[in-house]
Amino acid sequence: MMAMRAFITTVLLTAAAAASAQDASLTGFGPASSAAERGIEQRVDASIGSADLDGWLRRLTSAPNQVGSAHNKENADFIAASLRQWGWDVTVEPVRVLVAYPTTQTLSLSGGDHYAADFSEPAVAGDPDTTRKDGVLPGMEAYSPDGRVDAPLVFVNEGLARDYDELAQLGESVKGKVVLVKSSGAGRWVKPRLAQEHGAVGVVIYSDPEADGFPKGEVYPGGAWRTDRTVQRGTLGIDSVLDAKGAKTLQAEHRTGDLAIPVVTIGYGDAEHFLRALAGKPVPLRWQGGLPLAYHVGGDAGVHLEVRSPWEWRTLYNVVATLRGSTWPDEWVIRGVHHDAWVYGAWDPLAGTTALLAEAKALGEQARAGQRPKRTVVFASWDGEELGILGSKAWAERHASELAKHAVFYLNNDTTGRGFLAAGGDPSLAALVDGVAADLKDPETGASVQARRLAKRAVDAAGKGKDASGDLIPERLGTGSDYLPFAHRFGVPSLHVRYGYDRNGDDESVPVYHSLYDTYTHYQRFGDPGLAYVSLLAKTNARLVLRTANADVLPWRYTAFAESLGKDIDRVQAGAEATHREAQRHNALVATDAYRLASVSYRQWKAPAAVDDAWEPVDLTTLRAAQQDLLAAARTYDEAAASAGDLPASRAAKVNAALRTFASAWLQPSGLPQRSWYRHLLQAPGRKEGEDVAPLPGIGDALGAKDWAQARQELALTTQATRKAAASLRAATAAL
Amino acid sequence: MMAMRAFITTVLLTAAAAASAQDASLTGFGPASSAAERGIEQRVDASIGSADLDGWLRRLTSAPNQVGSAHNKENADFIAASLRQWGWDVTVEPVRVLVAYPTTQTLSLSGGDHYAADFSEPAVAGDPDTTRKDGVLPGMEAYSPDGRVDAPLVFVNEGLARDYDELAQLGESVKGKVVLVKSSGAGRWVKPRLAQEHGAVGVVIYSDPEADGFPKGEVYPGGAWRTDRTVQRGTLGIDSVLDAKGAKTLQAEHRTGDLAIPVVTIGYGDAEHFLRALAGKPVPLRWQGGLPLAYHVGGDAGVHLEVRSPWEWRTLYNVVATLRGSTWPDEWVIRGVHHDAWVYGAWDPLAGTTALLAEAKALGEQARAGQRPKRTVVFASWDGEELGILGSKAWAERHASELAKHAVFYLNNDTTGRGFLAAGGDPSLAALVDGVAADLKDPETGASVQARRLAKRAVDAAGKGKDASGDLIPERLGTGSDYLPFAHRFGVPSLHVRYGYDRNGDDESVPVYHSLYDTYTHYQRFGDPGLAYVSLLAKTNARLVLRTANADVLPWRYTAFAESLGKDIDRVQAGAEATHREAQRHNALVATDAYRLASVSYRQWKAPAAVDDAWEPVDLTTLRAAQQDLLAAARTYDEAAASAGDLPASRAAKVNAALRTFASAWLQPSGLPQRSWYRHLLQAPGRKEGEDVAPLPGIGDALGAKDWAQARQELALTTQATRKAAASLRAATAAL
Repeated sequence: MMAMRAFITTVLLTAAAAASAQDASLTGFGPASSAAERGIEQRVDASIGSADLDGWLRRLTSAPNQVGSAHNKENADFIAASLRQWGWDVTVEPVRVLVAYPTTQTLSLSGGDHYAADFSEPAVAGDPDTTRKDGVLPGMEAYSPDGRVDAPLVFVNEGLARDYDELAQLGESVKGKVVLVKSSGAGRWVKPRLAQEHGAVGVVIYSDPEADGFPKGEVYPGGAWRTDRTVQRGTLGIDSVLDAKGAKTLQAEHRTGDLAIPVVTIGYGDAEHFLRALAGKPVPLRWQGGLPLAYHVGGDAGVHLEVRSPWEWRTLYNVVATLRGSTWPDEWVIRGVHHDAWVYGAWDPLAGTTALLAEAKALGEQARAGQRPKRTVVFASWDGEELGILGSKAWAERHASELAKHAVFYLNNDTTGRGFLAAGGDPSLAALVDGVAADLKDPETGASVQARRLAKRAVDAAGKGKDASGDLIPERLGTGSDYLPFAHRFGVPSLHVRYGYDRNGDDESVPVYHSLYDTYTHYQRFGDPGLAYVSLLAKTNARLVLRTANADVLPWRYTAFAESLGKDIDRVQAGAEATHREAQRHNALVATDAYRLASVSYRQWKAPAAVDDAWEPVDLTTLRAAQQDLLAAARTYDEAAASAGDLPASRAAKVNAALRTFASAWLQPSGLPQRSWYRHLLQAPGRKEGEDVAPLPGIGDALGAKDWAQARQELALTTQATRKAAASLRAATAAL
Repeated sequence: MMAMRAFITTVLLTAAAAASAQDASLTGFGPASSAAERGIEQRVDASIGSADLDGWLRRLTSAPNQVGSAHNKENADFIAASLRQWGWDVTVEPVRVLVAYPTTQTLSLSGGDHYAADFSEPAVAGDPDTTRKDGVLPGMEAYSPDGRVDAPLVFVNEGLARDYDELAQLGESVKGKVVLVKSSGAGRWVKPRLAQEHGAVGVVIYSDPEADGFPKGEVYPGGAWRTDRTVQRGTLGIDSVLDAKGAKTLQAEHRTGDLAIPVVTIGYGDAEHFLRALAGKPVPLRWQGGLPLAYHVGGDAGVHLEVRSPWEWRTLYNVVATLRGSTWPDEWVIRGVHHDAWVYGAWDPLAGTTALLAEAKALGEQARAGQRPKRTVVFASWDGEELGILGSKAWAERHASELAKHAVFYLNNDTTGRGFLAAGGDPSLAALVDGVAADLKDPETGASVQARRLAKRAVDAAGKGKDASGDLIPERLGTGSDYLPFAHRFGVPSLHVRYGYDRNGDDESVPVYHSLYDTYTHYQRFGDPGLAYVSLLAKTNARLVLRTANADVLPWRYTAFAESLGKDIDRVQAGAEATHREAQRHNALVATDAYRLASVSYRQWKAPAAVDDAWEPVDLTTLRAAQQDLLAAARTYDEAAASAGDLPASRAAKVNAALRTFASAWLQPSGLPQRSWYRHLLQAPGRKEGEDVAPLPGIGDALGAKDWAQARQELALTTQATRKAAASLRAATAAL
């Protein structure tokens, strides 16, 4: 047995050691340039520490901020004016976009008690913002197709593929019916589309309390959690709302692309009335939620559902500000956060925008004092994120060729709170994040941010009876915020950071998600009282930006990247084999009548049918060999870079040029075969339940579709990219 | 990859093959004796099929049946008279026992609304038994110490060790307070004792709906599940209530042995009032239950709790009936089920008693027709099981020397329903159970009982992404019913069987457990409509009894037994190592301040203290070697026995004598060092959360207490027993 205490102690003390080693060189810097950088960071910290965070947050959240609202435009103007005042070169780039906010919404029980849902959210004591109703959107799904149906209501749990399988086993169907589904388990835009595929004529999405209501804690205003009248807004929008030609068709038809059935969203207080009206079969146990009744499938009680929106053109305002780099102006470090919100948006996203203001002020002051960053820094305040990441996508498409030429790093914020630094993104950024976290002091413990990250990981692992071993590699990014076009389409090494606290896996920022109650008052009580973590987030962002912008050599490290690729290959192989084994096992159970025998007759379950278990093994050996070679090249580079010292600018430039070809090696310019908007060979949004990001998506998609030829093709492309990336690292090593 | 379909098909079709192979010899029988046995079984089935099951169940459940009630005594008399009439030699053995049923119970809120709990259960529509209140015990904990306290109420989840650890981390204590705990997670007698150890002055146990209330399905009478006014009765009684001297002390002091604080039990409707009155800190997420509110720890709201009982002597009536064996009268096959209940007791236990009557009638008829079993069959209808397994324990102690000389098998029933055969017990009995299950037809599918068992196992395993491989070995027995003295103290190979259906691990018989609503009507609606499974249970029991009683050679097989011992050695070793590793990991986290850093300050959690992580490895090599030798001997014996054919009685007798020394080899006559009532080296009731039965308890207890010398001593004893058992099998093989 290993010496456990010694091991854990070492892991935890690494952070403390790093934090105290103020003399050591920063990643990407030599001794001299490190000292200069630390000086800048100290001055930036002082500026952030004296910034008017509370005033900005109060101002930004003082009125509703949805796309098209006056105050969202005011915020864009305020942000633009502020950055201009601090010396940034600011442009406000408008984007025309089709918007459908329902203005008519009805959901009522056709039967005895004629109960009708209420899409508004009542005021709560002690939060003045909740009493004002001017310009507040009701609970709704933006881009719901117009429609009016009278049909039976049927409950289908989370409305995901597995739920429809189980519904079929109960002998029930959603054909011609309105489905009632929980908001949990997947992005809400998935649910109406699956419902429509199964023949449903309307969709009601509700937030079950099990996810973020009273079972998690006291509800607002007594505590932070979701009340029975808290509605989670959302969007069903897709890219075509950005595209004038496609959008005109949508406008004419009052529907959203592939989606033609009306959709509403309600709170759990309303949902309880509808669930109580449902009789019929008892649900599978897995479907039961947190309301105090036995849930039933229904299919008997009728509802009237009606949705109508004016389908209107609105303007998004992306605010994009630049501080031109002093040494390498053609290398861009981009940092973004959106400013639109569903209502006031204190948690989501304006605490992050408050941090951006503080950073911009500090960087502007430094530039005026002669400390202009070496690389160009681009600060972006995106609009239209809530409607479908519209602003950042439009901007990235418009500036695609510049991005390809100039972008070296994209840093994103969105919802943020207090507690622990969470960083997701490209594994090559791990060393940068670790270094920044080690240098920052956590406001509530006095320990370093890195020490808290490591402690949390060790304690969480211990709770599962495990040791926390290995490095803290950021998880690759999924689909939830403005990093989407940068990470997944343009292949810019991207990072998403926030502060937060997951209590047993439950993010305490969730409860007021997309509701009226995401206010300044809620944030100051439960988000980050005193805004100490907004200040810390600004310092964190500033360091991440500056340590990239000012580094002699881009501060990327690749050993963790190559190891992560190795794990992804294992996951894809294991996943494909498990899927195949499961299909065979299932079919064997079907063939032997085991499903019927294992059920009980009074439940009247229908045994499932056999599935396609065709299978061809795809040999990943060459990709594994390429990955091993990449790992060797990565180790060599990382060691050489760590001991490089202060480099002359010309040599550094050569190294940086080589490193930039590493990032672009992973792009498939024609896009992934089954989802051509996405271009990254190593990452795309997950398509399976519970999988935020799909590893090796080209190969994985093809295996999922049983297209073995395509899988081999994607495998060859990925192998080739891996070799190319290894060559980039060898060139970078040679240039050092 | 293996050929999955072929594999599963083979597993599933084995049962069908066995069922159709009516010509094959039965385990323990040669060809000639098999044919005779099958003839008897057919006639027994016919008799059971024509028995008056419904009339008996109706009669047995027609009035309350707790110990001391008139109707429980009437049932004993009726069972005795019936068996006598069917030709059995019947004795009714009385046992004097101290009983404390509370007659005064108060639990009320001292604060504003003065709510008082109601310990009665209201009538429900359509179930006439629930309207009669004569002689119905209220919701109560038998043997609660008398007491009267006014103290603050504090909620401690399930009231187990881990919950008290977490309470300490919240900075709260139960000292001088009344604790409110859920009934789930462990036997209820554990909870008051743990509460008292932590300084509590009273205990309230309630059934949270998450366990068996509305979240599981419609409540009674709409469905089978627990209503808000359903109370789970229980006992805090211990052995000393059987012992006149010790019991007189209890009677004088109105307390139960080590327990001195009053205890009540309530339903979740009452519990909700008390939980709503609790403020204070929010509970750890794990503690939240199914009621529609955020649970709090409390400690502020005061309650008045009072319990008083007359501590009176009552008589238990064990009915024990014998059919003397025709060939080997000194070998006893014992089959038991209790007849006392908390109220009417249709599920628990009188459906099982109904089966016993049918079996007794059929066996009696066969005996009268000249087909007396070869071994002596003892049928026992136990009393006082609900008060603490009192009747069977008293009888087994009284007849200990006879048991040692004569008992070859103990077969138990208790709560039973419909669906799948569940059999727990000694692994040497697996072949007997498999053979019986393969020969019986399931009433609702027409497949064999074995085919359904195998299908359920395969489908359950597939649900976890696994194959069901290997044999269906019954799990060793825990502590829940009358098998306790036979299996754990006297080392009789024991089996507990029932029919039931676990839906995702939830036993559908649970909801009315120990309540008024465990009635004939509930049973006929949700237990076993038409009693087809009571009939099947009777046939199952009759075969298990007769195939043991009539076998030439006892139908035990030992390969599975030896393999199971191998797994137990692995479990004990892995468990001990995991405990040690966990202690080291915990102490490392304490030493590095990781618990504090991983928490958030606004929760005000107190980091736990370091634990004792002393450790000495105990070398299990010699035990493993002995187990391997036992496995070799078992394989040799099992093969030889399978091909033995019809044996002359004298040779069979020699084999049987050797086999009986196998079972007794595992007894430690002085008892396990830390719980001397238990004597079996391989099994004892589990002491850890979620562990029903502890493997190798002598070794495990010593390791848990860090008594390394004792662990080595127990290891030596177990190794010696394993060698002795292997020698028994070699002697049996030689005698074949």
